[in-house]
Amino acid sequence: MRDVELDFSREEYAARLAKVRAAMDAAGVEVMVAADPSNMAWLTGYDGWSFYTPQAVVVSHDGEPWWWGRRMDANGARRTVYMDESRILDYSDDHVMSIERHAFAQLGGLLVDLGLSSGRVGVELDNYYYSAAAHQNLVAALPDTEVVDATGLVNWQRGVKSEQELVYMRRAARIVELMHERIRELVEPGMRKCDLVGEIYRTAMSGTEEFGGDYAAFVPMLPTGADASAPHLTWDDKPFERGAGTFFEIAGAHRRYQLPLCRSVYLGTPPPEMLEVEKALLDALENGLDAARAGNRACDVANALYGTLEKVGIHKEGRCGYPIGLSYPPDWGERTISFRPTDESILKPGMTFHFMPGIWMDDWGLEITESLLIRDEGPAEPLANYPRGLFVKD
Amino acid sequence: MRDVELDFSREEYAARLAKVRAAMDAAGVEVMVAADPSNMAWLTGYDGWSFYTPQAVVVSHDGEPWWWGRRMDANGARRTVYMDESRILDYSDDHVMSIERHAFAQLGGLLVDLGLSSGRVGVELDNYYYSAAAHQNLVAALPDTEVVDATGLVNWQRGVKSEQELVYMRRAARIVELMHERIRELVEPGMRKCDLVGEIYRTAMSGTEEFGGDYAAFVPMLPTGADASAPHLTWDDKPFERGAGTFFEIAGAHRRYQLPLCRSVYLGTPPPEMLEVEKALLDALENGLDAARAGNRACDVANALYGTLEKVGIHKEGRCGYPIGLSYPPDWGERTISFRPTDESILKPGMTFHFMPGIWMDDWGLEITESLLIRDEGPAEPLANYPRGLFVKD
Repeated sequence: MRDVELDFSREEYAARLAKVRAAMDAAGVEVMVAADPSNMAWLTGYDGWSFYTPQAVVVSHDGEPWWWGRRMDANGARRTVYMDESRILDYSDDHVMSIERHAFAQLGGLLVDLGLSSGRVGVELDNYYYSAAAHQNLVAALPDTEVVDATGLVNWQRGVKSEQELVYMRRAARIVELMHERIRELVEPGMRKCDLVGEIYRTAMSGTEEFGGDYAAFVPMLPTGADASAPHLTWDDKPFERGAGTFFEIAGAHRRYQLPLCRSVYLGTPPPEMLEVEKALLDALENGLDAARAGNRACDVANALYGTLEKVGIHKEGRCGYPIGLSYPPDWGERTISFRPTDESILKPGMTFHFMPGIWMDDWGLEITESLLIRDEGPAEPLANYPRGLFVKD
Repeated sequence: MRDVELDFSREEYAARLAKVRAAMDAAGVEVMVAADPSNMAWLTGYDGWSFYTPQAVVVSHDGEPWWWGRRMDANGARRTVYMDESRILDYSDDHVMSIERHAFAQLGGLLVDLGLSSGRVGVELDNYYYSAAAHQNLVAALPDTEVVDATGLVNWQRGVKSEQELVYMRRAARIVELMHERIRELVEPGMRKCDLVGEIYRTAMSGTEEFGGDYAAFVPMLPTGADASAPHLTWDDKPFERGAGTFFEIAGAHRRYQLPLCRSVYLGTPPPEMLEVEKALLDALENGLDAARAGNRACDVANALYGTLEKVGIHKEGRCGYPIGLSYPPDWGERTISFRPTDESILKPGMTFHFMPGIWMDDWGLEITESLLIRDEGPAEPLANYPRGLFVKD
């Protein structure tokens, strides 16, 4: 057994593998090719910023998973995955940015060589790091194999968190609390946004004396005023001004586990309309947390939120939450359940969600959110402990 | 004409569009669907961290490009793109993370409605944010249209930089110099890596008094000792130790323009072998810069580097450089030319590259790189002005 420092016990990795195999059985998939970096890390421990070149984890019904990627990243695999050296497969550098040879064609050949091409092979068709060309090349290299869509098969197994995963998420929660505290200390009219972002990053990385921080799967979002109605714009080097609100959508991260938390700040005196919306939003958030109970459905949380807002004349629809855990850019969601009126997924103890009711008006926005844990009983537990509500600084 | 603050003149966007149209003509493509966020930004000015949901820019031979994406991000488009309101198209939120309706199927319908489905449609088959499912859905929604691979068509037009692009890259160069300076000031045995990363980020964002920084397309890489042979591992919260080398692969960024620069640091007394490799690497780098001249080929740079290293018994092959400019995660390369022995692309004035000869041994690594500009004549100009060589700190 190789001597590797792992973030989780080998028993935990074995339990994850067993869950994935059961899901493969249920889906009639004999070999799973997971290219989602969060699925790869969750299954094997692999952690590297190497997802800009082709890589995957292959799971069959026998033995340990295989890690497959670029040769120079195989060294990173040797330092992070629990499997035996023989389960680390690579391709040569002349596949990188080449129009002559595609790495996924090489993977297809390896699957044939390993005797893994006779049954149905599942792939993640709708995933950031599995391109249309990757799929075409893999399929072409497996002419006698049925390659089927198994998007989300691994993601769905990640929903209920283990004790050790919750330890990391609670550390990330401590970090995001410190990040918001730092924002409140520093934000003021005249401060350049980029300078505040620098402080947010520094706090995110330094974490506490006991543990440090990791990169979040999003960069900080902090749109002000009218830009807050465009929630995914990033910062610039202009100063904060009095008389405008800013929401801060940020996450603490520890060992790739993400803990998002949004708070809004107003410099000056907020307009009465914003304070009314704030009050409604806090009530709605409380009602949503109360509905986020084991045995309830995802839509129950959305309906509790939207119903409360509707009473004060705010009509909202769409998604207001998603599962969180281990993630890589560009998204910190697990991409399975959605808190929305049409999603009837049952909530289970140990599931974790970012419950994020954003109100985006035409010329301002307000976001106050919680990352929550579904408990065995009772309402959900907010994982971060930070005052809700619009923070007003004059 | 809408009142939008643009990073480039409308004339520059028009010139870019003309280059893309000429490339479309040459490739026999009548409509181009570019989902690469850097291509989208370069063509229209759009800038947002929204590439985790489907989005694209559509170029035909008439009028302005169309921006297409999620409804809430259309607000971000209104604030960043130069085109008319009528050229901003969106899809509703029930397409997001849905297994029932795919946004790219909706785009296919829009192309039909806009009369853009009668000619050949080019897509970026091998791109991070164009999944296999995106392609299948687009093709299925365009049953009478020939959809062809046009990966890289837009990227290739981005190679030669404009004066304004070089202004932004030179600002990013100032920022990366400050980042390395901060590392030299602070790095010492006992300092936790995560704390140094926090300082690197703070410096990257704060930039100078005149301009701030933006997020780079990679997170900082700073592997130490044996981990340096695994170049894409990220940091942890363990302290730096005496008796080991660390390389810092980082970039300054300004308005999404990236300026990567790597330097290596040794705490203590470096082994003689490392100093020998350093000397060879510096010579090789100098010879590579000298070969990076307008009219020469990409392979000439690689051969100058590898030939110099070969003379002292270091055998290296593969890629040692790539074009840089406007980028989004997960990669700061433009994914066109490679500095490698088989690439005969001709270098042109105004092209910019990250020339990155990394030496990764079994138990240590050394990276000293330059981001360079191909001049009208003479050897390439290093865009950052920072001492080369292994920095030794006792």
